[in-house]
Amino acid sequence: MLISAVNYAYCMAQKLNSMNRRTLKARLKVVRRALSQSSADCLVVTKPANVTYLTGFTGDDSWAVVFPRTGALITDGRFTEQAARQCRLCSIIERKKSMVEAVAKLLQTRSAGRTPAVEKSTSVADFQELSKQLKSRLKTVALIVESARRTKDKDEIAAVRAAAEIAASAFERTRRLVRPGLSENELAGILDFQIRKLGGKNSFETIVAFGANASRPHHQPTDKKLSRNDTVLIDFGVRYNGYCCDITRCFEVGRANPLFRRTYIAAEQAQSAALNLVRAGAEITAVDRAARDVINKSGLPVYSHGTGHGLGLEVHELPVVSNRTKEKLLAGDVITIEPAVYLPGRLGVRLEDDVLVTDYGYILLTAGTKKKR
Amino acid sequence: MLISAVNYAYCMAQKLNSMNRRTLKARLKVVRRALSQSSADCLVVTKPANVTYLTGFTGDDSWAVVFPRTGALITDGRFTEQAARQCRLCSIIERKKSMVEAVAKLLQTRSAGRTPAVEKSTSVADFQELSKQLKSRLKTVALIVESARRTKDKDEIAAVRAAAEIAASAFERTRRLVRPGLSENELAGILDFQIRKLGGKNSFETIVAFGANASRPHHQPTDKKLSRNDTVLIDFGVRYNGYCCDITRCFEVGRANPLFRRTYIAAEQAQSAALNLVRAGAEITAVDRAARDVINKSGLPVYSHGTGHGLGLEVHELPVVSNRTKEKLLAGDVITIEPAVYLPGRLGVRLEDDVLVTDYGYILLTAGTKKKR
Repeated sequence: MLISAVNYAYCMAQKLNSMNRRTLKARLKVVRRALSQSSADCLVVTKPANVTYLTGFTGDDSWAVVFPRTGALITDGRFTEQAARQCRLCSIIERKKSMVEAVAKLLQTRSAGRTPAVEKSTSVADFQELSKQLKSRLKTVALIVESARRTKDKDEIAAVRAAAEIAASAFERTRRLVRPGLSENELAGILDFQIRKLGGKNSFETIVAFGANASRPHHQPTDKKLSRNDTVLIDFGVRYNGYCCDITRCFEVGRANPLFRRTYIAAEQAQSAALNLVRAGAEITAVDRAARDVINKSGLPVYSHGTGHGLGLEVHELPVVSNRTKEKLLAGDVITIEPAVYLPGRLGVRLEDDVLVTDYGYILLTAGTKKKR
Repeated sequence: MLISAVNYAYCMAQKLNSMNRRTLKARLKVVRRALSQSSADCLVVTKPANVTYLTGFTGDDSWAVVFPRTGALITDGRFTEQAARQCRLCSIIERKKSMVEAVAKLLQTRSAGRTPAVEKSTSVADFQELSKQLKSRLKTVALIVESARRTKDKDEIAAVRAAAEIAASAFERTRRLVRPGLSENELAGILDFQIRKLGGKNSFETIVAFGANASRPHHQPTDKKLSRNDTVLIDFGVRYNGYCCDITRCFEVGRANPLFRRTYIAAEQAQSAALNLVRAGAEITAVDRAARDVINKSGLPVYSHGTGHGLGLEVHELPVVSNRTKEKLLAGDVITIEPAVYLPGRLGVRLEDDVLVTDYGYILLTAGTKKKR
């Protein structure tokens, strides 16, 4: 029985890989085109999400090198079996020594490795060591793969949507179990368990904040118990098939809370104002400003963080949706819109949804959990 | 009621901070001494765990600067409230612009910021940008804070032990719920839920592997269901009070499996052989070799990863316990010992425990889950 199980897994991997070959080729083409505009002839990819994007490999501690015609994944013995299943488009090199030594050796043996560039997200330690080993001046390039990753293809959008659907079901099930006496920690645990049961994983550590705790945007769940009359903020995400969603919901428990209602409505209107501007070609600063203006006009304090961010293989990707991003939205961007109102010592409300940017407006990917307060 | 709740939190924070002041002072002293041996007069700390270690701050996206007499945390509006509660020993700077701009400005206004050094784990992008803003050659230093972090103090050891105790209870409860038909994903979900219920968090994504899946050291849980006669590998960790434990357990379900038993015993003997050498002053390569020799002599394939690693604020810290670490163990090191046997297509066994290194031998910190196969 064991042997046939292995064969089945192998066939599935084959199927998956033949599906992915075209996608990977298209991605590599975009990166090679961007690279050809620099003076480098190959790119050393060190950021894990970028390695995954270009090779299909989902393990850790591995780098990729993109040559003009070929590609290589450099990994170690822990991941060789997994790499063989996942990457059919690039060669796999199992390193025995350090990563930098293995990459230097690879570059020195290839004719197209004479003027390599390394990603600027690489650590100074690795950059210096690789420069030393290569005995040549190493170039650096910024955000080539990250920029390619901005424009999501059909499969990527489907994966974010699937993650959002799991999130919606998990949230719905958890919502029914909320009762006074539960701690923030327990509620986070219940939600995480539902996500797992539905086949997803957390895309980041779930934030659950009761009452005044929600005025800290990055509060970590504590043993604080839910009161009979209280307010709840839950900021959570699901990773499915490698792709993330990121959602924040707020609701009240027990007696109606006029301050919460007022704050909630302001956040909701701010979110709508921003979303109404979302389309390919819209100035990101304008989207950001639209949300802040609504909160400012309602006489509430304006949040100090950005209005949103891109997401995909990572929960924070390009573009940053803030007043400092002097860029336009592109069709294919997947972004969050998450305006908030924080009243220290009292409460906090943040409403966060994920949308796909198109030429004609936005498509809501997190519809399932909307209006579930 | 709200106001007194806030006051209570404030008093608790005061208490916590007065407890921590001495610890933080001692840590800064060690780092300043190491720094004084370089030609830099201050250190820009960018690695999150290092920032936490030196300031007490547990949020994200923040850097610290260690000056000869003072220290500063540079954060943003999302974390100002949290930073004010957590760091009493350094000043808090809320940045409005980019991190690099804020740090450059700080260094330019302080007399002790003339020859700054930055951690080598910093990205090339940040390093280049900071160099540019400072208009001076920026120094780099490697592993100063990481080396200080190797030697755990009483509170840190207690935190790892507390994490291990939660892990033991969560594992015990989960073990009772294991039954044929459960998927790897579901079992991981159950374990994670128990950890949360006990007040802990995952220190990394739980690995659950059934049967042949366990031959991939970094397998990710799938929908594969547990058979009536099967083998299980669980590699998981708990984070408590910021500190991690990291444990791997293997057991069989149903009918006895002679191959599993043989493999398990070899891994167990390999672990004992390595542990018997653990004490301050022991060569790390000797500890690593002891475990491999046992597996080699038993005629089974020797694992390709290291025999262990340090752990603390991060799940992978110094020292690396492998045949490439030409160093000695130090009293106060907290390390894992995790030899393994992988039989691709058949099964995998890895046994992992966390120990404190002392002058007289090792102290097992993960006793609770031992012998629970």
